[in-house]
Amino acid sequence: MENYPYQDSSLAVGDRVKDLLGRMTIDEKIGQLVQLFGWQACTRSDGQLKMVEEYKEMIVTGAVGSFYGFLRADPWTGVTLETGLQPKESAEAVNNVQRLAMNHTRLGIPILFGEECAHGHMSIGGTVFPVPIAAASTWNPELFEQANAAVAEETRSRGGAATYSPILDIVRDPRWGRTEETFGEDPMLCAAMGTAAVRGMQGAIPERGIAATIKHFAGYGASVGGRNGAPVHIGPIELREKDLYPFEKAVEAGAMSVMTAYNEIDGIPCTSNRDLLTGILRDEWGFDGFVITDCGALGMLAGGHRVAADGEEAAAMALEAGVDMEMSGEVFKAHLRSAIHSGKVSLDVLNQAVSRVLTIKFKLGLFENPYADPERAARVVGSDAHRKLALKVAQEGIVLLHNRQRTLPLSKSLRKLAVIGPNAANRYNQLGDYTSPQPPEAIVTILQGIRDKVGAEVEIAYAEGCRILGDDRSGFADALEAARSAEAAIVVVGGSSARQFGDNTIDPVTGANLVTEGDSDMDSGEGVDRTDLRLSGVQLELVKAIHATGVPVIVVFVNGRPVSEPWIAEHIDAVLEAWYPGQEGGHAVADILFGDCNPSGKMPISVPRSVGQLPVYYNHRRTNGKRYLEMDNEPLYRFGYGLSYTTFAYSRMSVASDRITADGETTVSIEVMNTGAMAGQEVVQVYIRDEVASVTRPVMELKAFKKIALEPGEAATVSFTIGPEQLGFVNKSLQRVVEPGLFTILAGGASSALLEAALNVDQASAE
Amino acid sequence: MENYPYQDSSLAVGDRVKDLLGRMTIDEKIGQLVQLFGWQACTRSDGQLKMVEEYKEMIVTGAVGSFYGFLRADPWTGVTLETGLQPKESAEAVNNVQRLAMNHTRLGIPILFGEECAHGHMSIGGTVFPVPIAAASTWNPELFEQANAAVAEETRSRGGAATYSPILDIVRDPRWGRTEETFGEDPMLCAAMGTAAVRGMQGAIPERGIAATIKHFAGYGASVGGRNGAPVHIGPIELREKDLYPFEKAVEAGAMSVMTAYNEIDGIPCTSNRDLLTGILRDEWGFDGFVITDCGALGMLAGGHRVAADGEEAAAMALEAGVDMEMSGEVFKAHLRSAIHSGKVSLDVLNQAVSRVLTIKFKLGLFENPYADPERAARVVGSDAHRKLALKVAQEGIVLLHNRQRTLPLSKSLRKLAVIGPNAANRYNQLGDYTSPQPPEAIVTILQGIRDKVGAEVEIAYAEGCRILGDDRSGFADALEAARSAEAAIVVVGGSSARQFGDNTIDPVTGANLVTEGDSDMDSGEGVDRTDLRLSGVQLELVKAIHATGVPVIVVFVNGRPVSEPWIAEHIDAVLEAWYPGQEGGHAVADILFGDCNPSGKMPISVPRSVGQLPVYYNHRRTNGKRYLEMDNEPLYRFGYGLSYTTFAYSRMSVASDRITADGETTVSIEVMNTGAMAGQEVVQVYIRDEVASVTRPVMELKAFKKIALEPGEAATVSFTIGPEQLGFVNKSLQRVVEPGLFTILAGGASSALLEAALNVDQASAE
Repeated sequence: MENYPYQDSSLAVGDRVKDLLGRMTIDEKIGQLVQLFGWQACTRSDGQLKMVEEYKEMIVTGAVGSFYGFLRADPWTGVTLETGLQPKESAEAVNNVQRLAMNHTRLGIPILFGEECAHGHMSIGGTVFPVPIAAASTWNPELFEQANAAVAEETRSRGGAATYSPILDIVRDPRWGRTEETFGEDPMLCAAMGTAAVRGMQGAIPERGIAATIKHFAGYGASVGGRNGAPVHIGPIELREKDLYPFEKAVEAGAMSVMTAYNEIDGIPCTSNRDLLTGILRDEWGFDGFVITDCGALGMLAGGHRVAADGEEAAAMALEAGVDMEMSGEVFKAHLRSAIHSGKVSLDVLNQAVSRVLTIKFKLGLFENPYADPERAARVVGSDAHRKLALKVAQEGIVLLHNRQRTLPLSKSLRKLAVIGPNAANRYNQLGDYTSPQPPEAIVTILQGIRDKVGAEVEIAYAEGCRILGDDRSGFADALEAARSAEAAIVVVGGSSARQFGDNTIDPVTGANLVTEGDSDMDSGEGVDRTDLRLSGVQLELVKAIHATGVPVIVVFVNGRPVSEPWIAEHIDAVLEAWYPGQEGGHAVADILFGDCNPSGKMPISVPRSVGQLPVYYNHRRTNGKRYLEMDNEPLYRFGYGLSYTTFAYSRMSVASDRITADGETTVSIEVMNTGAMAGQEVVQVYIRDEVASVTRPVMELKAFKKIALEPGEAATVSFTIGPEQLGFVNKSLQRVVEPGLFTILAGGASSALLEAALNVDQASAE
Repeated sequence: MENYPYQDSSLAVGDRVKDLLGRMTIDEKIGQLVQLFGWQACTRSDGQLKMVEEYKEMIVTGAVGSFYGFLRADPWTGVTLETGLQPKESAEAVNNVQRLAMNHTRLGIPILFGEECAHGHMSIGGTVFPVPIAAASTWNPELFEQANAAVAEETRSRGGAATYSPILDIVRDPRWGRTEETFGEDPMLCAAMGTAAVRGMQGAIPERGIAATIKHFAGYGASVGGRNGAPVHIGPIELREKDLYPFEKAVEAGAMSVMTAYNEIDGIPCTSNRDLLTGILRDEWGFDGFVITDCGALGMLAGGHRVAADGEEAAAMALEAGVDMEMSGEVFKAHLRSAIHSGKVSLDVLNQAVSRVLTIKFKLGLFENPYADPERAARVVGSDAHRKLALKVAQEGIVLLHNRQRTLPLSKSLRKLAVIGPNAANRYNQLGDYTSPQPPEAIVTILQGIRDKVGAEVEIAYAEGCRILGDDRSGFADALEAARSAEAAIVVVGGSSARQFGDNTIDPVTGANLVTEGDSDMDSGEGVDRTDLRLSGVQLELVKAIHATGVPVIVVFVNGRPVSEPWIAEHIDAVLEAWYPGQEGGHAVADILFGDCNPSGKMPISVPRSVGQLPVYYNHRRTNGKRYLEMDNEPLYRFGYGLSYTTFAYSRMSVASDRITADGETTVSIEVMNTGAMAGQEVVQVYIRDEVASVTRPVMELKAFKKIALEPGEAATVSFTIGPEQLGFVNKSLQRVVEPGLFTILAGGASSALLEAALNVDQASAE
């Protein structure tokens, strides 16, 4: 087995793939397209890890090419802190599998271990970062790239070589439970964060990097009614402008893998959509990685969408459309062989898919070094450096929504504080969906963060007050007592994406929550879509009751989707949106509450005033309807909005050349000055409006932004290039074009109250 | 002027048009495409009608081809019962205009008078029928055809020769204020009612018929957020299957005119969409009538959508796309001449549009007899026969939603009744939007209807209780007193589409309500979109308070959009949905309350449990999402649902041939028996599910229905043809096809609890 050309690392990847492919049987080829649930591969008994015999058999016969979630632990997998894999032993377990694949199979093809890494490597011990909607609130792609590099390093050190993030779904209906997993409503911000994630994940391949999978391709965030996986009703222009744009940018950035979405678009399931998976993705964009299905999406073609009569038809249809690997593997495993023998799928198509999978394995360096380094895993997983990164993302992702009467920052000389609310001291409620169990001491709650900040000399009265769900008010009395004697009350309310164990609470195939009525407090996360955007349960009542005591109240939202509570917006002087801020969330919130960190987050999604106002997003078309009977169409908080403890003044907006050609560029500059008394960061935002175009255009669209730091009194001139990338749009023929005419450029610190400048675009000279 | 060929009625219309066109100047041609607001043409002083000089001048110079709403009276037009045109004088006023056009112009081209007739001719004295959503609830197209014939006769007798109905918009977001003007959520039911309207309107042309205009073309009912005129995000398959289908059927039925919609679809405004107005409408469907814009829609191309830089570009763009006439005429009047002279529009395109307008005028017989008959107008407008038709539509359109404990029908031996609620005795609140002022005695309120029914010997305590809007509970005390002493309380709540006069309450261009906060009670109608579907104001509180007295409560909803009040559904034993039942509504409701009429209406639209559940419709795709955290996806009332005072049993479903070819037909039969004690009508509904198809298909789709009458104990076998029309769908190539495979046919009295039968479809023999 030592002398085959494919094993020669000095040869080009294409040649190695070709050589290897020529040696493989049909069954071995099919095996490469099958990905199994990895956490089922081992059992632990008497403290010893042991491979399940059936899995061992599949590995040595080449019947499996990849494992999903080998290192995953959570209520869905049923893997717990006790039964799951610690960092070092997880690397050893991966190595055991790889040794089987490398040394005990005919051709020695390494296994691809794919892991969940949306906000940290979702494994025991992995650093838990803030959820993506919080990361998007930082408007700091450079920081997010560093965070992703750290996550990739942790993952690769344990043997993972691919991940199923970033999620590039655009969400404009926050009833959807997966809102927390997205970068919000804007294609450009999403693309900026998404490409940062790709660069961060893949930058250190093959040593410390892993293959990023961009998902869910496509339109998954636009499902009807905010219902998870429901149909998407959208036209081809809107699809390209909004939903496909971040994917196009991530492909440009080199994303190695794409995951198909569960949903259909206008009657065509994404997982069998050849126009999408081959036409747009490969032929138009030149994607050269591989395409994997979402978990169970292949079965859904026959069992849900019913565009296929059975599994064989579904397998054939998906492979022909451009799917290369099946997550969970059930359909390919059971039906691909017969689909090939019956001629439903050609060998060419099979070979193409296998080649793509092998190519990634070669590119990841798995043939040269399939093994993890247990010592490195022990060293890097959950390291101090990574915790600091998680803290920084949490700090920058917190959005200051209100700060009337300069309520914040709190003085450190306060002697008595109340910390109240269901999310003040609940570890898993601040971590978001998909999170693995972690040792208790790893998670800093807001209560703990405040204690760490103020020290033992400050008296802190803590009360849960109520839970997220339900109408139990029995904790109100304690909460009110805590508030009454305090100088300030920090009330931490919001949502929960913390999954519960228990029968029939989780979809056995997809892991989505089945939302049964139980004692779970979960009101967000995959499968937990809502009909309301208000705080669940009696939380608002709790806030009102505490406010009524007269104590100064600071509300901190810890949650995954926008909270629509106009009463809080109106009556509470200081409000922070912390999202699910991750394991360092308590420190981050405390840093902001007490002024050790100046908030700099900006909203990546509009917050509606009411669920009945949906959809609400800033970049709507001009004819967006007038007002409703009960209210206008303005959100409670606009996209791009977020306060600071200091103030910033915008002035001197200028456009280097106010007349350019359609293929030309110019520069727009704005002066920003810190006019307050504290150093701070500001996100300078540039929007563009195309005044007249052949298809209708949004009232404005984010086209550039930059986060800058300014000392008090300091000013900076921030410049942005404006060219075809910023001025173009998708026309009736589905081409991206710049049309001559008048454009308005808008700049400021939010999507409202902006400076404006005109830009005239003439026909390109070559045209 | 007597010897031109175009004046020779023995010649073919095409030859007459050609001859006339050849004699017209460009300005005269442009004039034919201009439609002005007709109610502005006359003034009344000292009881005398007088033409406005400017209008006279335009008529005699041929600068206007059509008048819109010459006979209209309502708050938008500012025409009142005092200033407006009574039936007989309206015919005389039309004749004055026509005499100018016929005798004082160069070519003697008659004016086309276009009127509003969505639920009766919207004019003083015109019979006020129930709104379209009520008509759709009858599931009785034959009855609706008769009603439309009556409306057409009233209109034509007064000089109107065209109308701007039926509305064929499919509504699945009842936040939309125009829901009342539609036939609901289902394309097939909408097509059935819409084609009935077209036949009824046009059947007696040229004597007593008028040209129907199908609107709004297209997608207008699918605007984002239920916001009037807002963008539509929809793919081409869904558009054809759902929104275009009723239009296609109405074109087949011979509709003479089409109105463009305000909205854009996927970035393309309908009013400049050539693919829609020419490609689909004319080239595919063979439409040979003319296309008119919605009021102000042309200006919106430049001022709203901004696909045109100015009026000239908008005029050119629309004419090139396939628009023939502009309602309100402002843009064509001001800019078409320069657009032609500058070459932005070709003369060929102008001639084509003029030809289409002239063709309709010839077909309507206006050249032979442009005049109305004042005596006939006095005789037929608001005639007893027409009132009886309005009563019958109202009776059959009322849906019995609940009738626990056999609360209904009420005994006529009750001696003391309470009639309570804001819609019990408010005339305009039961008439719907667009209604003209009417003499008070013409409108029978529910209070009046009950009084007429039970006679003077029954004591009736009436109390308004509260208004539709606002939080004024000062009327509760009287209402509760009325209830406490009564044997039963009939509580009439719901909505209001009654427009108020007043500054800044109405869009001066479109007539849409601007929804200012005032003392209006309007919570429905054009421009009045809501963020909630619950009863407005304190109405639910009123119902609860009356229920709490212990008196048996019957709730009657009088409203324009679905009422989402789960509490009423759960706690009130008898609930009627009466919609806006028109001028005979009070008699219709009383007939049903006291059992002189057995309810037979069925819901043409799903009623959600909450606005947060939207969209809710029965014919969704299979992958419609699971449940929400707070509730499942099931509506409060399903499409097709409605109770009777008797019961019907379905049995013996059979399919004549359970295997046919794709181009073949078979017959499905069901036996329906009246198993109760009262004669009644039942709507037998047939749905079809395509089990596997190349694009995803709905869980079921209405494909046939029939309303039958059965005596107690009587049974009938009802048969339906199933063939390509019922089995086909729009595939990926946008072709309507029947794909071989298994179909399930479902039959019953609602879209739930259905009998099922299988049908196998084989490849067509010719294929």
